[in-house]
Amino acid sequence: MDIIKLGILGLGRIGKIHLETICTKIEGVKVIAAMNPSIEGRSFADRYGIPLVTDNAMAVLHHPEIDAVLICSPTNTHSDYVIEAAHAGKAIFCEKPIDLSLNKVRETLQIVSNANVPLMIAFNQRFDPNFATIKEGITAGKLGRLYTVHITSRDPSPPPVSYIKQSGGLFIDMTIHDFDMARYIVDAEVVEVYAKGYNLIDPEIGIAGDIDTGIILLTFDNEVTVIIENSRKASYGYDQRLEVFGSLGMMKAENPIKNDCTFFDKKGAHLPRHLDFFMDRYTMSYQKEIEAFIHALKNKQPMPINGEDGLKAMIIAQAANISVKENRPVKIDEILIIPGSLPH
Amino acid sequence: MDIIKLGILGLGRIGKIHLETICTKIEGVKVIAAMNPSIEGRSFADRYGIPLVTDNAMAVLHHPEIDAVLICSPTNTHSDYVIEAAHAGKAIFCEKPIDLSLNKVRETLQIVSNANVPLMIAFNQRFDPNFATIKEGITAGKLGRLYTVHITSRDPSPPPVSYIKQSGGLFIDMTIHDFDMARYIVDAEVVEVYAKGYNLIDPEIGIAGDIDTGIILLTFDNEVTVIIENSRKASYGYDQRLEVFGSLGMMKAENPIKNDCTFFDKKGAHLPRHLDFFMDRYTMSYQKEIEAFIHALKNKQPMPINGEDGLKAMIIAQAANISVKENRPVKIDEILIIPGSLPH
Amino acid sequence: MDIIKLGILGLGRIGKIHLETICTKIEGVKVIAAMNPSIEGRSFADRYGIPLVTDNAMAVLHHPEIDAVLICSPTNTHSDYVIEAAHAGKAIFCEKPIDLSLNKVRETLQIVSNANVPLMIAFNQRFDPNFATIKEGITAGKLGRLYTVHITSRDPSPPPVSYIKQSGGLFIDMTIHDFDMARYIVDAEVVEVYAKGYNLIDPEIGIAGDIDTGIILLTFDNEVTVIIENSRKASYGYDQRLEVFGSLGMMKAENPIKNDCTFFDKKGAHLPRHLDFFMDRYTMSYQKEIEAFIHALKNKQPMPINGEDGLKAMIIAQAANISVKENRPVKIDEILIIPGSLPH
Amino acid sequence: MDIIKLGILGLGRIGKIHLETICTKIEGVKVIAAMNPSIEGRSFADRYGIPLVTDNAMAVLHHPEIDAVLICSPTNTHSDYVIEAAHAGKAIFCEKPIDLSLNKVRETLQIVSNANVPLMIAFNQRFDPNFATIKEGITAGKLGRLYTVHITSRDPSPPPVSYIKQSGGLFIDMTIHDFDMARYIVDAEVVEVYAKGYNLIDPEIGIAGDIDTGIILLTFDNEVTVIIENSRKASYGYDQRLEVFGSLGMMKAENPIKNDCTFFDKKGAHLPRHLDFFMDRYTMSYQKEIEAFIHALKNKQPMPINGEDGLKAMIIAQAANISVKENRPVKIDEILIIPGSLPH
Repeated sequence: MDIIKLGILGLGRIGKIHLETICTKIEGVKVIAAMNPSIEGRSFADRYGIPLVTDNAMAVLHHPEIDAVLICSPTNTHSDYVIEAAHAGKAIFCEKPIDLSLNKVRETLQIVSNANVPLMIAFNQRFDPNFATIKEGITAGKLGRLYTVHITSRDPSPPPVSYIKQSGGLFIDMTIHDFDMARYIVDAEVVEVYAKGYNLIDPEIGIAGDIDTGIILLTFDNEVTVIIENSRKASYGYDQRLEVFGSLGMMKAENPIKNDCTFFDKKGAHLPRHLDFFMDRYTMSYQKEIEAFIHALKNKQPMPINGEDGLKAMIIAQAANISVKENRPVKIDEILIIPGSLPH
Repeated sequence: MDIIKLGILGLGRIGKIHLETICTKIEGVKVIAAMNPSIEGRSFADRYGIPLVTDNAMAVLHHPEIDAVLICSPTNTHSDYVIEAAHAGKAIFCEKPIDLSLNKVRETLQIVSNANVPLMIAFNQRFDPNFATIKEGITAGKLGRLYTVHITSRDPSPPPVSYIKQSGGLFIDMTIHDFDMARYIVDAEVVEVYAKGYNLIDPEIGIAGDIDTGIILLTFDNEVTVIIENSRKASYGYDQRLEVFGSLGMMKAENPIKNDCTFFDKKGAHLPRHLDFFMDRYTMSYQKEIEAFIHALKNKQPMPINGEDGLKAMIIAQAANISVKENRPVKIDEILIIPGSLPH
Repeated sequence: MDIIKLGILGLGRIGKIHLETICTKIEGVKVIAAMNPSIEGRSFADRYGIPLVTDNAMAVLHHPEIDAVLICSPTNTHSDYVIEAAHAGKAIFCEKPIDLSLNKVRETLQIVSNANVPLMIAFNQRFDPNFATIKEGITAGKLGRLYTVHITSRDPSPPPVSYIKQSGGLFIDMTIHDFDMARYIVDAEVVEVYAKGYNLIDPEIGIAGDIDTGIILLTFDNEVTVIIENSRKASYGYDQRLEVFGSLGMMKAENPIKNDCTFFDKKGAHLPRHLDFFMDRYTMSYQKEIEAFIHALKNKQPMPINGEDGLKAMIIAQAANISVKENRPVKIDEILIIPGSLPH
Repeated sequence: MDIIKLGILGLGRIGKIHLETICTKIEGVKVIAAMNPSIEGRSFADRYGIPLVTDNAMAVLHHPEIDAVLICSPTNTHSDYVIEAAHAGKAIFCEKPIDLSLNKVRETLQIVSNANVPLMIAFNQRFDPNFATIKEGITAGKLGRLYTVHITSRDPSPPPVSYIKQSGGLFIDMTIHDFDMARYIVDAEVVEVYAKGYNLIDPEIGIAGDIDTGIILLTFDNEVTVIIENSRKASYGYDQRLEVFGSLGMMKAENPIKNDCTFFDKKGAHLPRHLDFFMDRYTMSYQKEIEAFIHALKNKQPMPINGEDGLKAMIIAQAANISVKENRPVKIDEILIIPGSLPH
């Protein structure tokens, strides 16, 4: 398996990013098939000279030369494609979440497990240079025993209400990245969730049955507490920060800013804005997550983020949803005992 | 009432700060009597040429020339001195808390109210230049509607366990400043408290029945959430930060550092430590709180922080204590209905 | 001229950067020929599917389909290639300097002028996002009338002495970027140069007849003074800063750092290093300078940096060399009157 | 000599600062006499209960109980008071400069030397916490061998032209602090000065024969170069920075700012102004310089800044004046050979 041969399903926003990254920045891989229902997505693929560009997912999933597939299509197709890829014996890179239904996620993971194919869930933020630096600091023991973690995650503006309606809700759609980050940073398991949710930004979001502001406390089995602050709208730009407090010190990651110029006038000192779009902020993380997938494949190592990680983040999200609804701390065990489709 | 004449009771750490501040930095006041049980405190007062230096509290509280008293003695004397001062018709500046018993606080405030004397509770942090700047920004409308507030408050190291045993516990002793700050910043009332408490720093603190790490969510009647992170020990120094997020922007106060020098070497850039002792950090706030008291007295204006403010911070603390014990959100109304001495 | 067709000469460090940038990031251009004497460079070009990859410069310079050439070969080939390209009627993008001899630069520019072909000199730092932001601030009038400018430019470590020997000296090789930046920022002409030069870093550099530390004062015809600090070695990493002081304010660009994480411990706060290699620091500037060249070609606009700009930076460098040697301020007019090869 | 007994001459702006500092913050000293020609200054002294408050300088200089005098009167009285104090055998703390005439400074220092009394020249900036931290870093070897130093020193706005006329000029009046700082930081002697001076801020300053903008290069006998940037007016506030570059690293001191709050909105991040008045910025340095004087007296140690230091800063200033006038580097030796009153 010298050159890894890839197929990609879905050429929307994230599929295009992955395709471009792979074709221009990653060595030792070749995309040999790409699927997208619309012509627009397929013509994007044509720029990179992909041998097979099609609207037929099966043609990619069962392509005899392909080693691995990247599933970047809409969420409601994920589990079907994952199952089909597993049956075809392909390694799988799947955008989060596998499905909005916990039961379906469980069933899908069972099939992947039976097929014994590698599966990576694409929580790209683990590969962000800022957050990765903090993780390295923790692993190196610079912080000692962890006490509390604070994650701030605010979007520059909410997505369309039509999107929100089918998103699974704030915790599944947006906070899920923070739930995964919390598990990654603390390196332990959540035992209890307490969450508050509000509709403060746009009344239409509330009418659609969702919240736009969330505050979540995660209690881990090692007594670490993670606090997450979420908002669908930060007027000052995309806000993605992390702060970790431990017995030997504290480490925090601020938002990367557009340039390093400060202007001083009568009113004070003025710095430019943050990188305020996720594709500017997380450009590097997308590249590094693909590299990590390829590296694990080539070296037959375990995937850095597996199906269990995807499942656990969803379980936390479900606990958070129940917590908001019932205004009480919810044990993770409750969710494990009463599986079912996610309340929405 | 041209020159305000003051008496001071208690010349421990905070009493000495107030006495020195008043004698060297504040115009239009004169300390004419000071009480301390020990000789050491009284000899400190002698440096400033105070006419009456005594170990007799009554001589100060009922001194015919005195307009106002500063009560800086141990907590268990506060309510008695406040009541005596109220009977003597003196204006009162009292260190927090008035008492560890909620009932006793209520009774004391009733007496003050009946005597119709001004009473200021000394929550000095309201006068810290950083926090005051944020308050000004909010008042000026720079942040728009508030959404969430995050208070980080960590001590450089825990007090002796002997002190902790009689302190009333973390929430009464330390977080009470943050509860008041939350009310000050949000300018609304708390309706619910959810708190987690841990003993992570020193097992002796747990044996003494207290916690050393707290995470508290305050829900306000205007849907603002305040998150407080407390620890008795931050290895990197006294950590007192505030961040406020609203519809128009975000404002945060970092810790003041010792100087403005950065050293760049092969490993990166290195800045000095924070001001890591509360007396360095809050020097200016002590001066400004005294000035505010004197200003209100001279101009016959309401006290900037009154007895109700002191009581409300204690009620929040009691709710937090119950929340930790019972692991559930506690409504403030519950505390109002079931008054009693604070659980300890 | 829909798609601009390019030839590239020289595939060393900078040639490779330009080739990769053009092939992966720039729309509306196509590299159809590439020349490099060594196989290593040519095999790099093969990765991008360039139709003609050759060791024959003439085959590129006179290629009938080519609109423009990028001259990225060693300095001693620049003027010959520029002249040949001018005769062939190609637009020219040339790395700095055109030649180490001022006379030869003048002759070459005369030929380019007679041939009436566009020529851009590649002072990439003008396109650095930090410096470009300061330029925009000045142009927008935010600084008012300029008073002084301070440029800090320090390399992480000196090049090999063998390179230094044929480099033309510190001012021609390194400071020339700062001379151009000074002219770009001040938007006026230098009338006088005073420079001090020292050999402090490595005695071998002194033995080779060069300096490794330079301090230069440029006096402009509008009374602005530019101070340049140069060193061949900054132990803390590549240091490229700019500060501009004017009647309405001050603007400064700090070095971009590797990530946005700060670690706080007992000793203080620690930030990561700067981007300490010019290819990390100036990645974006290389892309933007190529875009500017292509944009000017497509829109038949004047080149953003022309031959005169290249010549003037060299004249300043020559004045600086004389100033160090004779320890006196040197008028630019002196150099204009006594042209000749650069003293070294 | 348990309690040092002080007399103070001159209760203008700086005299008041010293008097207040000594009376409220410094242990082991007592001011027993104060002289000021005007009632306003004397009534200030009365607040502190000084036993002798007079308009008679001789009564202070020859007061039998006094150990040391602080000379804070106008510059044209300095040398007379210093000489008188030397004859009276008093230790002397004198504001800079001793006189505007170099010859007179030399004569005065000779008399002080003959009288064998301690003399400290009050270059307060050496005691600024920022600059002192950099000095400590250098002394501790953190920077290795020094290469270049950059001092930025800009006032928020120029003094009245009437003041400027008798000030001795920019270099004597303002830059003299930077000349002393340069010598303090480099810990070597200046051998050559090159300076440029401009009248850019206010034409009236030019009409009065002075400059308002200065750029000075100091060459030290150890090949360190110090660059000083001076302006009489920085619209963004008092600007006092220092940057030192050496073989092992770089250290820089930024301006202290008013608080630690940042406001983030659509336009970016906004910080407050610098401390923009010298008395806010240098408060601590005034206290520390008095403490250093008292400490040296009590311990019979050499003064931290002596008469030679004052003289040398003036000699550099004179060289700078000649350099601007003649537009050439001026050797310090030239000034030593041709003593005389300062050109102005």
